Amino acid sequence: MKRLAVIGVGLIGGSFALGLKKAKAVSHVVGVGRNAANLKVAMERGIIDSIAPDAASAARDADLVLVAAPVGQYPEIFSSLRETKALITDAGSTKRDVIAAARKSLGKRIGRFVPGHPIAGAEKSGAAAASAELFRNRRVVLTPLKENSNADVAAVETAWSTCGAKVSRMDADEHDSVLAAVSHLPHLLAFALVHEVAQRENSAELFSFAAGGFRDFTRIASSHPEMWRDICVANRDRLLDEVSRFSKKLDRVKALLDSPAELEKLFAEARAARDAWIHSS
Amino acid sequence: MKRLAVIGVGLIGGSFALGLKKAKAVSHVVGVGRNAANLKVAMERGIIDSIAPDAASAARDADLVLVAAPVGQYPEIFSSLRETKALITDAGSTKRDVIAAARKSLGKRIGRFVPGHPIAGAEKSGAAAASAELFRNRRVVLTPLKENSNADVAAVETAWSTCGAKVSRMDADEHDSVLAAVSHLPHLLAFALVHEVAQRENSAELFSFAAGGFRDFTRIASSHPEMWRDICVANRDRLLDEVSRFSKKLDRVKALLDSPAELEKLFAEARAARDAWIHSS
Repeated sequence: MKRLAVIGVGLIGGSFALGLKKAKAVSHVVGVGRNAANLKVAMERGIIDSIAPDAASAARDADLVLVAAPVGQYPEIFSSLRETKALITDAGSTKRDVIAAARKSLGKRIGRFVPGHPIAGAEKSGAAAASAELFRNRRVVLTPLKENSNADVAAVETAWSTCGAKVSRMDADEHDSVLAAVSHLPHLLAFALVHEVAQRENSAELFSFAAGGFRDFTRIASSHPEMWRDICVANRDRLLDEVSRFSKKLDRVKALLDSPAELEKLFAEARAARDAWIHSS
Repeated sequence: MKRLAVIGVGLIGGSFALGLKKAKAVSHVVGVGRNAANLKVAMERGIIDSIAPDAASAARDADLVLVAAPVGQYPEIFSSLRETKALITDAGSTKRDVIAAARKSLGKRIGRFVPGHPIAGAEKSGAAAASAELFRNRRVVLTPLKENSNADVAAVETAWSTCGAKVSRMDADEHDSVLAAVSHLPHLLAFALVHEVAQRENSAELFSFAAGGFRDFTRIASSHPEMWRDICVANRDRLLDEVSRFSKKLDRVKALLDSPAELEKLFAEARAARDAWIHSS
């Protein structure tokens, strides 16, 4: 792996480049992005070595291309990659829509696209926040296509392992269901709660009495709005399933306010499950 | 203030004792509790200097009594305090129910009970977690009664200030509404989400792909089940109002999955409101 092209040099793309550079797995990184100031930061921080005007030219001499832009931009990016000979992967948080866009736009190059998702978000964004250690011990899910060669899947797997990640493979359908439950729904709930509080007449008073629990609960409501719009819209069907399940659960918890012993049991079961997860992870 | 009695020597009661001891504002602390092992820890850590078998004997020679047990135990505790001459305050997370219990059980002593709520919870509990610094820069709300003397309210205010807290006064009704929105509802949502995930057939898989966002969002689901049962039941009416408002908001967000621009706007408004709060606090 000698030349890496990063389409979207944000937290994820920038950290991938830094991780591979630190391991001396890439010799040159070319970056593409909409935000000139951010690309300047990426140059200054040594994340990228050169800037290309678009994905097509960035990919021309690349061995590996990472697409790490908001998923709403993928169709256009894939179209401009249909002539590249490079191996392509991505970092999108949803996979069915990404694969559909790739099938539509990449043409015969579809076999060289290995879809991926590093589960390592943060409320920080941009090249300034990138770190060679971001993926250390974090999970990366690959959702390979039937057209992929074993060698290409293994090469992408190796790149993420080199960044310190724990890589696993999963069906795209399953990926989108799992992430809807443990990532997309919590983000939606956090955004909704903060918005609800912010729109009240007494919002200043409410915020002034919010404490550490509220701060942590709502941390993900400081996430990137455009990125999360794209994720929610792309995974709309699964997210709606999760919202419906959650609404039913909330109705049940509401009803349990009349049955203190059962309410305490539910709280205790939730605490035990969370504590077991925390201790095992 | 020479002798302090703490009824319920947990995180809150223990930290109050440590804060006042550190400032040399109390010379002797007597503790009461249901859990002998916890009281032993409190003795060993110098949080309390002696143990009393019940609230009545603890309060006998006390100048100030802090009730810091789960609010479900308050009626019994107040009954055993009806002969005390000490100033009484409490640390309950709900105030209307606490005041009602006090009016019912404290008899003529009601005037010496100044209700309070330190907004400084944590998912840790017990004397082992207590710290003299827990209340530093945290808010404490007092909800004084019309029967309270100015001197008694000021004395309780001084005790909390001595622990480093920012003390304010509020109507009990308003307190319960504000806390339902920014504390009780988020706890209910976090417990509900974790319980939902834990009860799925594929819960092990779901937890294994949960990341930092899920961990922070659900931190408060590791809170004390009995304490939160009591809070939710005590503040049932206000909490139901908040659940209804939140459900409506969630329905609206659901509908916005068909209007990406408006969805992004809502996300951006939530992020801006949260970031403004974080920067100002």
